[in-house]
Amino acid sequence: MQDLIEQARNGRPRAIARLITKVENSRTAAAEIVPALYAFTGQAHIIGITGAPGSGKSSLVNELAKALRRRDHKIAIVAVDPSSPFTGGALLGDRVRMRDLSGDKGIFIRSLASRGNLGGLSQATAAVIKVLDAAKFDTILVETVGAGQAEVDIAGAAHTTLVIEAPGMGDDVQSIKAGILEIADVLVVNKADRPGAARTVRSLKAMLQLGQALAMNHHGRSTQTTSVATVVSPNGLEYDENSWQVPVQETVAIDGTGVEDLLDVIMAHKNHLQVTDGWLAQEKLRSRREIEALLQMRFMDQFQTAVSQDDREQLITAVANRKTDPYTAVAEIFDQIKA
Amino acid sequence: MQDLIEQARNGRPRAIARLITKVENSRTAAAEIVPALYAFTGQAHIIGITGAPGSGKSSLVNELAKALRRRDHKIAIVAVDPSSPFTGGALLGDRVRMRDLSGDKGIFIRSLASRGNLGGLSQATAAVIKVLDAAKFDTILVETVGAGQAEVDIAGAAHTTLVIEAPGMGDDVQSIKAGILEIADVLVVNKADRPGAARTVRSLKAMLQLGQALAMNHHGRSTQTTSVATVVSPNGLEYDENSWQVPVQETVAIDGTGVEDLLDVIMAHKNHLQVTDGWLAQEKLRSRREIEALLQMRFMDQFQTAVSQDDREQLITAVANRKTDPYTAVAEIFDQIKA
Repeated sequence: MQDLIEQARNGRPRAIARLITKVENSRTAAAEIVPALYAFTGQAHIIGITGAPGSGKSSLVNELAKALRRRDHKIAIVAVDPSSPFTGGALLGDRVRMRDLSGDKGIFIRSLASRGNLGGLSQATAAVIKVLDAAKFDTILVETVGAGQAEVDIAGAAHTTLVIEAPGMGDDVQSIKAGILEIADVLVVNKADRPGAARTVRSLKAMLQLGQALAMNHHGRSTQTTSVATVVSPNGLEYDENSWQVPVQETVAIDGTGVEDLLDVIMAHKNHLQVTDGWLAQEKLRSRREIEALLQMRFMDQFQTAVSQDDREQLITAVANRKTDPYTAVAEIFDQIKA
Repeated sequence: MQDLIEQARNGRPRAIARLITKVENSRTAAAEIVPALYAFTGQAHIIGITGAPGSGKSSLVNELAKALRRRDHKIAIVAVDPSSPFTGGALLGDRVRMRDLSGDKGIFIRSLASRGNLGGLSQATAAVIKVLDAAKFDTILVETVGAGQAEVDIAGAAHTTLVIEAPGMGDDVQSIKAGILEIADVLVVNKADRPGAARTVRSLKAMLQLGQALAMNHHGRSTQTTSVATVVSPNGLEYDENSWQVPVQETVAIDGTGVEDLLDVIMAHKNHLQVTDGWLAQEKLRSRREIEALLQMRFMDQFQTAVSQDDREQLITAVANRKTDPYTAVAEIFDQIKA
């Protein structure tokens, strides 16, 4: 095991792939491997990418990956599909991507599909990211399929979170979601050459302003910091590195339009995190979530050991038949665990 | 409290609304109210409705509600938005619906939005459904916004689950998701007057067949039962009540096309559940999930009592700074809880 970790640390793709398979498939393996390589993590810039199906997310991830390679980043792409118990969708996405990106040693691509257990998938994703981080990838792109809470959770664990929208998906009152906007560090309107793009950009900007106004009301104060430090990125992007205003970027992933600018903005966000306490704050948030998830898993293991399969089935049947209620049943289980 | 429950049992809207507000806002209140009314639950037919934004889900729920009223069902609509920490979106949906449906005492409408805690929302939804069930609503429509795992979980807890698609959303490899198809009892292609509807119906049928073939392979046998009992619904729908083949129904919600047929299919599924052991199986599944969710919540409460806020923050900071790793941290917490 120590040998495998050493090889992964030296960038050997086969060792990395084997470690990932281990942490993905077995919680016991993850509980052994993650502590062994944890001290080497915390270096990679983790970029979460989420957005509705049809937004062209995968093409955009492709183009971002190529742009990062042009800037000599060693990158890993993790495509996570919380909604699929099969690996079909994610693997198909892989193959589409692979046509463009395979053969490049600076890119590592991996798909993760749900095994019907969402907690398990979040945990597996967290462990896989740690393996890649310890393997010295500079940038890890975590792409999630769909736009639900699961995706929000997974993508939201990144340092920099991109939310992708596309024009013409906005004819439903619910299609632009406040909850997803909340986690965005950068909003992207992809397919920006399509009709309605300008309208989508305008609605997103309006939603952002509304969100900001609500947040100020809620906290009774502005969240802006006091000092202003305008810096200019290598490509001429001007921004205040002390405070972050979520920008709305336009891209056309299929021909690469706007991708370099988007990458500038992503790097500006990374810089913002590094000069403020944002980077550590993200690490703490991720640590907190991971500890809570692991606690819950260990507790469920304990429960399954303490209460026999038969007792569990009897209790469930009693609740289903209205002989008892779920709250009373849970109180009984707690008594059994303690005894 | 007992008085409020009695009033809700007699269909008094204000009492129902007050109970819902209590169980939604306070877990302590839910732990008191749910056991008190649990024996009265288990009568309502719970219909889960999920599907991608833009599929016209809310309009379809409207039309289904009207069709159910024409058949004299007393109905409740619960609109759940797991992705929104604001109530904005869900409330907006309410108002749109209210124009058509308000003023009818046989309909009760309620929106639930996420408070940033998904487990909390699932629990709140489960408790709200129980209040409505005990208040003698015949049919409870649970509509979830979005198409992620959270929605799948909430809608999947219903007796009959509808998954809504629309034509023209299928130009992305990931837009039709195996995970969502898996929970569907009825698939609906809404906006069936739009170009591409026939293609969407065909792809869904193909996906269903593929899913069935995979399931047979996986279990090494067909899931079909041996006896065949063809029945005919009041509106002339013929089906085998012993085995359920997921149908693909076409609707145009905005003018009501196909809605009566869809309702026939939904009632046929209810009948199928009642003549087979499907109804009890659903109750058991829901009981199992609820017990597990309540167990996890109680455990997290215990953890927060046993480990002080300061100790938790120190541990999180140590993990974020790589002084320790999440697995070791969790082992320490478990020792503290046991001590």
